[in-house]
Amino acid sequence: MNTFGHLFRITTWGESHGGAVGVVVDGCPPQLALDISAIQFELDRRKPGQSHLTTPRQEGDVVEMLSGVFEGKTLGTPISMLVWNKNARPSDYKHLKDVYRPSHADFTYQQKYGIRNWQGGGRASARETIGRVAAGAIAKQILREQEDTEILAYVKQIHTLTAEVDTNTVTLAQIEASPVRCPNPDVSPQMAERIDAARRDRDSLGGVIEAVARNVPVGLGEPIFDKLKAELAKAMMSLPATMGFQIGSGFGGTTLTGSEHNDAFYNEEGRIRTRTNNSGGTQGGISNGENIVFQVAFKPTATIGKAQETVDIHGNAVELAASGRHDPCVLVRAPAIVEAMTAIVLTDQLLRQRAKNAAPSP
Amino acid sequence: MNTFGHLFRITTWGESHGGAVGVVVDGCPPQLALDISAIQFELDRRKPGQSHLTTPRQEGDVVEMLSGVFEGKTLGTPISMLVWNKNARPSDYKHLKDVYRPSHADFTYQQKYGIRNWQGGGRASARETIGRVAAGAIAKQILREQEDTEILAYVKQIHTLTAEVDTNTVTLAQIEASPVRCPNPDVSPQMAERIDAARRDRDSLGGVIEAVARNVPVGLGEPIFDKLKAELAKAMMSLPATMGFQIGSGFGGTTLTGSEHNDAFYNEEGRIRTRTNNSGGTQGGISNGENIVFQVAFKPTATIGKAQETVDIHGNAVELAASGRHDPCVLVRAPAIVEAMTAIVLTDQLLRQRAKNAAPSP
Amino acid sequence: MNTFGHLFRITTWGESHGGAVGVVVDGCPPQLALDISAIQFELDRRKPGQSHLTTPRQEGDVVEMLSGVFEGKTLGTPISMLVWNKNARPSDYKHLKDVYRPSHADFTYQQKYGIRNWQGGGRASARETIGRVAAGAIAKQILREQEDTEILAYVKQIHTLTAEVDTNTVTLAQIEASPVRCPNPDVSPQMAERIDAARRDRDSLGGVIEAVARNVPVGLGEPIFDKLKAELAKAMMSLPATMGFQIGSGFGGTTLTGSEHNDAFYNEEGRIRTRTNNSGGTQGGISNGENIVFQVAFKPTATIGKAQETVDIHGNAVELAASGRHDPCVLVRAPAIVEAMTAIVLTDQLLRQRAKNAAPSP
Amino acid sequence: MNTFGHLFRITTWGESHGGAVGVVVDGCPPQLALDISAIQFELDRRKPGQSHLTTPRQEGDVVEMLSGVFEGKTLGTPISMLVWNKNARPSDYKHLKDVYRPSHADFTYQQKYGIRNWQGGGRASARETIGRVAAGAIAKQILREQEDTEILAYVKQIHTLTAEVDTNTVTLAQIEASPVRCPNPDVSPQMAERIDAARRDRDSLGGVIEAVARNVPVGLGEPIFDKLKAELAKAMMSLPATMGFQIGSGFGGTTLTGSEHNDAFYNEEGRIRTRTNNSGGTQGGISNGENIVFQVAFKPTATIGKAQETVDIHGNAVELAASGRHDPCVLVRAPAIVEAMTAIVLTDQLLRQRAKNAAPSP
Repeated sequence: MNTFGHLFRITTWGESHGGAVGVVVDGCPPQLALDISAIQFELDRRKPGQSHLTTPRQEGDVVEMLSGVFEGKTLGTPISMLVWNKNARPSDYKHLKDVYRPSHADFTYQQKYGIRNWQGGGRASARETIGRVAAGAIAKQILREQEDTEILAYVKQIHTLTAEVDTNTVTLAQIEASPVRCPNPDVSPQMAERIDAARRDRDSLGGVIEAVARNVPVGLGEPIFDKLKAELAKAMMSLPATMGFQIGSGFGGTTLTGSEHNDAFYNEEGRIRTRTNNSGGTQGGISNGENIVFQVAFKPTATIGKAQETVDIHGNAVELAASGRHDPCVLVRAPAIVEAMTAIVLTDQLLRQRAKNAAPSP
Repeated sequence: MNTFGHLFRITTWGESHGGAVGVVVDGCPPQLALDISAIQFELDRRKPGQSHLTTPRQEGDVVEMLSGVFEGKTLGTPISMLVWNKNARPSDYKHLKDVYRPSHADFTYQQKYGIRNWQGGGRASARETIGRVAAGAIAKQILREQEDTEILAYVKQIHTLTAEVDTNTVTLAQIEASPVRCPNPDVSPQMAERIDAARRDRDSLGGVIEAVARNVPVGLGEPIFDKLKAELAKAMMSLPATMGFQIGSGFGGTTLTGSEHNDAFYNEEGRIRTRTNNSGGTQGGISNGENIVFQVAFKPTATIGKAQETVDIHGNAVELAASGRHDPCVLVRAPAIVEAMTAIVLTDQLLRQRAKNAAPSP
Repeated sequence: MNTFGHLFRITTWGESHGGAVGVVVDGCPPQLALDISAIQFELDRRKPGQSHLTTPRQEGDVVEMLSGVFEGKTLGTPISMLVWNKNARPSDYKHLKDVYRPSHADFTYQQKYGIRNWQGGGRASARETIGRVAAGAIAKQILREQEDTEILAYVKQIHTLTAEVDTNTVTLAQIEASPVRCPNPDVSPQMAERIDAARRDRDSLGGVIEAVARNVPVGLGEPIFDKLKAELAKAMMSLPATMGFQIGSGFGGTTLTGSEHNDAFYNEEGRIRTRTNNSGGTQGGISNGENIVFQVAFKPTATIGKAQETVDIHGNAVELAASGRHDPCVLVRAPAIVEAMTAIVLTDQLLRQRAKNAAPSP
Repeated sequence: MNTFGHLFRITTWGESHGGAVGVVVDGCPPQLALDISAIQFELDRRKPGQSHLTTPRQEGDVVEMLSGVFEGKTLGTPISMLVWNKNARPSDYKHLKDVYRPSHADFTYQQKYGIRNWQGGGRASARETIGRVAAGAIAKQILREQEDTEILAYVKQIHTLTAEVDTNTVTLAQIEASPVRCPNPDVSPQMAERIDAARRDRDSLGGVIEAVARNVPVGLGEPIFDKLKAELAKAMMSLPATMGFQIGSGFGGTTLTGSEHNDAFYNEEGRIRTRTNNSGGTQGGISNGENIVFQVAFKPTATIGKAQETVDIHGNAVELAASGRHDPCVLVRAPAIVEAMTAIVLTDQLLRQRAKNAAPSP
């Protein structure tokens, strides 16, 4: 359904061309001094129209906070936030009313629900992620203030271009300095050119987002089913366009032997650490204090300008060439979304772990 | 926590060396004629000691059904099943009492809970999956009888050996005919030899399981967060030793352009289908009627006979060489587990979709 | 938390004096032609300022629908609705900033969260029920259109005045014709006078709401924990000011013997019915097709004009006399709320029962 | 479904005449030294055959613990417990195979599921509560050891006989000293005689259980829907035979005015208390530190020896006179069950409140 999380819980709502999109955040700890500009900052990182590498659809995407905050502090009650849909142009989509766009959700929504909002993706639009980003911005503040945890995501790969990035040292400034949000200054310009070429070619590209969470407390993750890696995987695979998730050594690690792959423990001045991090920061589904590192595969944007074979809702073969506004490569806007979902998962697990603390109530 | 699913819901319990392991299946539709031998068949596929390629630990793993069934039929009430732990040898593990085994869950469980069952992995043992397999065997019966849905999983890759398998035609018989459960008869013997070599070398191997679900009804999956791909990812990443999940084109698809990647729709005698299946059978997180195809990465078994650097619970550096019984490669026993979790996810989603049927009650 | 329901699920948010109050309805069946005026009708029944028997606080309470509906029909996606807080007068509450009002939630919220919105009850305000009423209005439409189920609630008792009402024949028109929403025309004027006397006396009254659901399908309710009576009890006891719930014979039935209390079955032209309805329409926690009949006790409004002993947040004894706007008796506005929660519970259970239908997918 | 609780979560299973009944307790805090004899003590209080006032069905009801405990301490993993059904006599029930017993769940289970275990109530049997009692015994230990919270339930009323009991001073010893578990020594013998008369008369009686929880931490309860009173109401109304729940002043309080009913705050040596406790220990759905006091109505046992009118499964009118073993009054065995569910609710809320503690992880 449209709710995610057990103790820190978000419920998102909204279609791309309805009145608004939004989120209700339940379970936010009380007395948190909430920085609304930090929420807007994340929404701005996600919003369309940032450059010619993203969709030209212009949306202010200004967040409104409707509840849960009093005199700048969280009340412990649900926080409701919304963003109005201002630049919706349903007329752009009229020609799609009866057509199933290839690799979009038109066909499956119609089959599942017997109805769909054909104006630009409806609930399946990436615009749905606005609520996630706003909620994630709150989660980030909790993690940063209470645990000094930092979460960063960036473009690791676009099409066939892959960038080396040091997960220990990469910074937000480096990521944001790149128009494609790839912190490797050698590869970033090539990626930008590759995306622009795809745009000119009326085609689209996919790629890989890598995320790192640093300074994560030891002990987060709730076996058996709510292991940290499982919750992260669900969070990422619930995003539009994602096709894969891997943590630590991932698929590449399957070609190593156990003796090559195991992460040896050692004692670093009283703190138990591992020499390598093939585990990606979790063992037995629980954080071990090393960096959480994972990757998410995004398919190339389904909306392209090139002509495509498809069928209409009556089953007739038709040719389709998109004329709406769209991104040639969604990865540029994806880091804020991946960071948000990571923060939501970690905050939820943090609260769940705190519940185990047996200190008597004051 | 230890419960998975929304309407078809399993709760597993048990440590590897406690009294028993088991599962409670809640939400099973009533009046299903339950084939207990089919449950046992799946447990036998999972159990250790099947050949020299698996751990020599011998467990009968005979399922007992304690509730929820009356005169051979399900009552709609919870089905409780258990398997006793008979061949536990805690003495095998005494030398591990104070040691953190590399890439095992010893350290993280100790940190999270302040206590752990050091006898063979405890709750983090793969023995925990017995409950999943028993529950999944029931889910398989529901899917087969009510929707004619078939689920198969098999070894796609061991170490650097990869097998071509046709997802449209592969059969259970082909899978079970291979001692490593790779249905490709050319690669299967090489894999067997590779595993045996690792065993002799006191080392271990990882690999990839591929799964296909055929004849899945259109419309399964519950956006936004409980998309089919998200639930499958969570299910797989909740398993021990899994490091990655990808569906359809997965990570490989990120090097294609949109025009190459999109799955064109066409009308096949009244049924709308796609020419390719890069989507892996889901679009917008909802099944589209094509085969569901996904892959799961398993790391090499953490338990190896080779000497390894690690620390004990006091933080002292120690050298560890495992002497317990273990698998050189868990993938041989993994297909039953992957199939089970797939069946549980699909059954849960099937029931959720049925709830949308607005036909008045009789 | 702030979410209720398993398949038909509502999430409410909002404080009495924040920007707005609202609800997200998740799991609403698709393709329902939604009558927004029916939603507004229910909100109008709940809103303050209807007569001198309710609080003079004037609120338009006009619902805005932000998502989930397209061309007048539900999409199956979350339906977000809100009502702006327009007539909030925080200055009315300034004198309460440091005072714990007796039998209000001021003290417990402060202790639980370490912070509270002291402007008029915050989240504990009855204004929170707006979201429930809006969601319940949708549930009512589902039940009425798909199952012909009718739900009515009315004032059964005010203070010491009790009204006889025939649960088989009472109508909405009869309820709404009474300014106190008691459909018994003999007792209604006495109740109105009793409430007005309490108002003049700067005091308040409590009472009992009775609800009946007619034409409920047989088979609703999910043992063991989600029995129909249990879900109804939770729904009612989650409302502000409720102190008790009883179904069927309730507490009064405890003075009967089994032979007096048992509801004999008989065959009424092919339909199995009971001669009496001491069970209140459920047996084993499952609806049996008879009327669901239950009662809810509401305490007298905690806010009164009379001087009261209390303490401030520093623990100093103070005397308090309310000067804000308030209801001398909340029961007059409660029927819409009780009906709403009843409809939400029944719709949720209806969808859960439908999921058991084993008809193959089309 | 068959799971209750959010962080401290129980899943019960089992029919009265299947192989066993049991429970899985998930979320139990780790490192708790578990007293199994205390669990057995509670089961003994609940078990049949304690005296001629209860059913003569003899069951040892010895609990077996199958997981979650290691060297006497909880692991933080699921605790599985079961009790075998030993004295089941299905032949006693053969004559009921085709008959719907009045005010039992036979008819509704058959309608809901299309199948039922006709051997003695199946899942609707009070035997289902064994799992609750075992789980509740663990919850009691948590509350007692970590918060010094004490929970007691006792018979307040049988048929028309009501006992005065001081909720501040009543003890377990007083309750257990009475064969009917009424701690008032004046009324207890009358109640015993009344029950015995009903037994001789082949009839049955109902009554009221009162429960008190003392020394409950301030701040438990999770608005809006999971208020403490709401969770308690659900827990109690999920029990077999319960018809009503009231907290504090309950239904009786509806005849008071606000000025009579409000609980004045005062400062008792630094602790804020209330002069009266009409609120029953919760305000705004959150515990305020006063005693939690509530009452639960139980209908007279549906199984009676007297002849009754009913129908069979074919709709034919038949006369029924029970010959199976049964209780003339279930209230005698109910205190252990009510205490268990109270403890489960409080423990769950305690853990949820702890999650709000913002102290950084160590």
